[in-house]
Amino acid sequence: MRLTVFEIASLVGGTVRGDGAVVIEGAAGLAEATPRDLSFLSNPKYKAQLQSTRAGALLVAADVDTGARPAVVVKTPSDAWAAVLEILDKERTRRPSGVHPTAVIAPGAKLGANVTVGAHTVIEDGASVGDNTILYPRVYVGFGTAVGADCLIYPGVTIRERTTVGNRVILQPGVVVGGDGFGFSFGAGSHRKIPQVGTVVIEDDVEIQANSTIDRAAVGVTRIGRGTKIDNLVQIAHGAEIGAHCLVVALTGVAGSTKLGNYVTLAAQVGVAGHLKIGDQTIVAAQSGVSHDLPPKSVVFGTPAQPIKDEMKCHAALRQLPKLMEEFRALKKKMGWGS
Amino acid sequence: MRLTVFEIASLVGGTVRGDGAVVIEGAAGLAEATPRDLSFLSNPKYKAQLQSTRAGALLVAADVDTGARPAVVVKTPSDAWAAVLEILDKERTRRPSGVHPTAVIAPGAKLGANVTVGAHTVIEDGASVGDNTILYPRVYVGFGTAVGADCLIYPGVTIRERTTVGNRVILQPGVVVGGDGFGFSFGAGSHRKIPQVGTVVIEDDVEIQANSTIDRAAVGVTRIGRGTKIDNLVQIAHGAEIGAHCLVVALTGVAGSTKLGNYVTLAAQVGVAGHLKIGDQTIVAAQSGVSHDLPPKSVVFGTPAQPIKDEMKCHAALRQLPKLMEEFRALKKKMGWGS
Amino acid sequence: MRLTVFEIASLVGGTVRGDGAVVIEGAAGLAEATPRDLSFLSNPKYKAQLQSTRAGALLVAADVDTGARPAVVVKTPSDAWAAVLEILDKERTRRPSGVHPTAVIAPGAKLGANVTVGAHTVIEDGASVGDNTILYPRVYVGFGTAVGADCLIYPGVTIRERTTVGNRVILQPGVVVGGDGFGFSFGAGSHRKIPQVGTVVIEDDVEIQANSTIDRAAVGVTRIGRGTKIDNLVQIAHGAEIGAHCLVVALTGVAGSTKLGNYVTLAAQVGVAGHLKIGDQTIVAAQSGVSHDLPPKSVVFGTPAQPIKDEMKCHAALRQLPKLMEEFRALKKKMGWGS
Repeated sequence: MRLTVFEIASLVGGTVRGDGAVVIEGAAGLAEATPRDLSFLSNPKYKAQLQSTRAGALLVAADVDTGARPAVVVKTPSDAWAAVLEILDKERTRRPSGVHPTAVIAPGAKLGANVTVGAHTVIEDGASVGDNTILYPRVYVGFGTAVGADCLIYPGVTIRERTTVGNRVILQPGVVVGGDGFGFSFGAGSHRKIPQVGTVVIEDDVEIQANSTIDRAAVGVTRIGRGTKIDNLVQIAHGAEIGAHCLVVALTGVAGSTKLGNYVTLAAQVGVAGHLKIGDQTIVAAQSGVSHDLPPKSVVFGTPAQPIKDEMKCHAALRQLPKLMEEFRALKKKMGWGS
Repeated sequence: MRLTVFEIASLVGGTVRGDGAVVIEGAAGLAEATPRDLSFLSNPKYKAQLQSTRAGALLVAADVDTGARPAVVVKTPSDAWAAVLEILDKERTRRPSGVHPTAVIAPGAKLGANVTVGAHTVIEDGASVGDNTILYPRVYVGFGTAVGADCLIYPGVTIRERTTVGNRVILQPGVVVGGDGFGFSFGAGSHRKIPQVGTVVIEDDVEIQANSTIDRAAVGVTRIGRGTKIDNLVQIAHGAEIGAHCLVVALTGVAGSTKLGNYVTLAAQVGVAGHLKIGDQTIVAAQSGVSHDLPPKSVVFGTPAQPIKDEMKCHAALRQLPKLMEEFRALKKKMGWGS
Repeated sequence: MRLTVFEIASLVGGTVRGDGAVVIEGAAGLAEATPRDLSFLSNPKYKAQLQSTRAGALLVAADVDTGARPAVVVKTPSDAWAAVLEILDKERTRRPSGVHPTAVIAPGAKLGANVTVGAHTVIEDGASVGDNTILYPRVYVGFGTAVGADCLIYPGVTIRERTTVGNRVILQPGVVVGGDGFGFSFGAGSHRKIPQVGTVVIEDDVEIQANSTIDRAAVGVTRIGRGTKIDNLVQIAHGAEIGAHCLVVALTGVAGSTKLGNYVTLAAQVGVAGHLKIGDQTIVAAQSGVSHDLPPKSVVFGTPAQPIKDEMKCHAALRQLPKLMEEFRALKKKMGWGS
């Protein structure tokens, strides 16, 4: 990358402050940037670093003071930042290409145009892979599974049989799609397996990150809605339906048959019990445990989760409780009232 | 599948209500079922759907009103449901078979009769695999490891050296058996690795689901008891012993040397500290943290976990605490008693 | 192994109590040891077992009474135990060696002396692997990635492109290094991916255990400091920096850009929010959620975490809260003071 601040502004639809002729060759955080790097301010926590940064130019919103330093002013700095990093990404990231001779592709599998099949990747009979999709080395695509176009499927991913992966889906290393749901019937002293004959549908533009697991439904479908992003080590159980454009952060578990609306955020290490309905645009704070249905636009925290304001009030009160107890004991004593 | 309601009743040992000649070709949840599907009621939460479902027939317990709709009445609907899904599973699920030419099998490894070894699977020297076991593609069986008969080992599973997997064991994709336990000795400013020279024994009829990890013992054995079922992303640490017929739900961790009895249930995201004894038939509610031994038939919740009734009482009280504090302040004021 | 108690004492720098001529052939826990095994006492909880153990000899600190049984007295029993287990480990553990013909090594990759490349392992162009490193079967080393010398990289590990792994690093099965961080910019109703163009540096002497994930930074570096040990199923997010000689226990998540000092311990299932600074030698108790910066030598517990003494006091008070509420109601009634 070698762009002037003017060129960057043009690229991201922003306006220039200061010297637009400065040349930028990379991107870095405020603390690490050199005079050849562009940097940006997203988290107000780092505002003080605007003084000390060595960055050659900044990407900021209009209300941020950048002094004499060259800056590109945009409405949404994180979006403009993404656009710049896309250029760097194309430069820096090499990907495999072609069909490697060690790949094992069943004669009955169908590959679109320009599909990459990495070394030691296995595509079983009846499976299909859409145009331009890259299957890295060591991927498994099961019998009858359909993977869409323009996907990136990283090493170590397992997509089991009869599941569907949409277009422009990214599966980071180690993701498992279509493992059996956790379903057993107890009787005569032991657990009998309930075969999981359903499937999984991953809709378009979903990304699922490293080592997360999406179980197949007992019957019917486990669904990850269009545009939803799932972080590392997340468990989505059988028959759950995650709406469109949700964010599910690391180490979260969603239990069986629960339905999330659209634009729901589950922060890290959240648990959502089974058979629940979580309304659109709900936010669940980290480490919460949701045990009841939630209406749209809920913001909850705690185990069991309640509205975050109530939970914070309870927490604050709890921290004063030891003192309250002492006072109450003193009061009882004063009143001559035995415990 | 193409069975009359009569035939299904005969298959699952149930009795017919209504028209037994109706033909069923699939299975589905109440909300999704078509007139050609069998459905069933397990969770009473869905009782209302018995009115609206389009299912051709229902699988229910005797006390459930099914109106005019054909129904098969059984003692344990979930068990009968499992039996029907087993038929569908056999129809729908294709598995690899034979020994793939890209598999790497050490000359000193021993394979039973009718073993499947998928593409790019590796079996090291001294390992053995029992009759009829299916190793999917991309499995690793380490030096001297014994895998029993009639197992299903899915893609991406790693079974490290000198471990033992029983008969009829199912390991879902990405499971790791026999990774080193987390054991270090601190001294001179750094952590020295304590070699983990012990092993893992997975007993018969165990299922371990996607990306869960069972560490090998430092010395001795990490044991998963007969018939126990472990969900996705569960961590069982070195030297832990899980009893027979337990259920361990997703994202749970059991620390080192802890011993669980039989028929223990650990709900999701539970943590059990090390060196504990958890009695038979104990139930630990989701997101709990167990820090003490528990007698048989305990039912606990919270961090640190206590009997669930006590924990629920504390939770209820906590939610009233902000109000109590206000009242207490008012009382003190009324009494002219300064804080 | 076949060593007298004298020889073991000499090996670990200890002194002999009782009959030093006793021959030891193995090592086991106190409960499982036979007369041919060495055992040791680490956790005082097991002190009572010193009476009942059948161990042929014991490894203990000076203040432990071992009666007439042969014993080796050392300053740090766990360290001496590690030394003995290292001998057993060398005897018991077979590892692959040589470059397997099914490995796929790009012509532009550089291998040091005596490197092992297991079956079906893939090393991409521009990657390098240092002397004596063992890559087990089914490992992926991405474009331009540098793996150091004397490493053990177990089956199923994925090390993505342009990352750095130091010397003497151990990656247990299923570890993912360099998966994309969870970074998106929201606008126009959907999440736009912020390309993660940064990298990961794993310093010398680090061990990362099964199925844990270390994400690459958006820009800059995600760093795991020298000598740090990470347990199974841990998530380290983009741009996080873990100091030297830390312990991070199972199912813990560290969010983006957070910096841990040296010698920090995060017990199991801990969550640390993003953009925080955690001081040296801090200990976070299991299942805690850290939402604020912590000074060095903090010892915290709870969600949100506070000093452990305060948290324990609050817990104790909470358990008395239902009783307090009853008393308060009685008091109000007695005073004729309505609710």
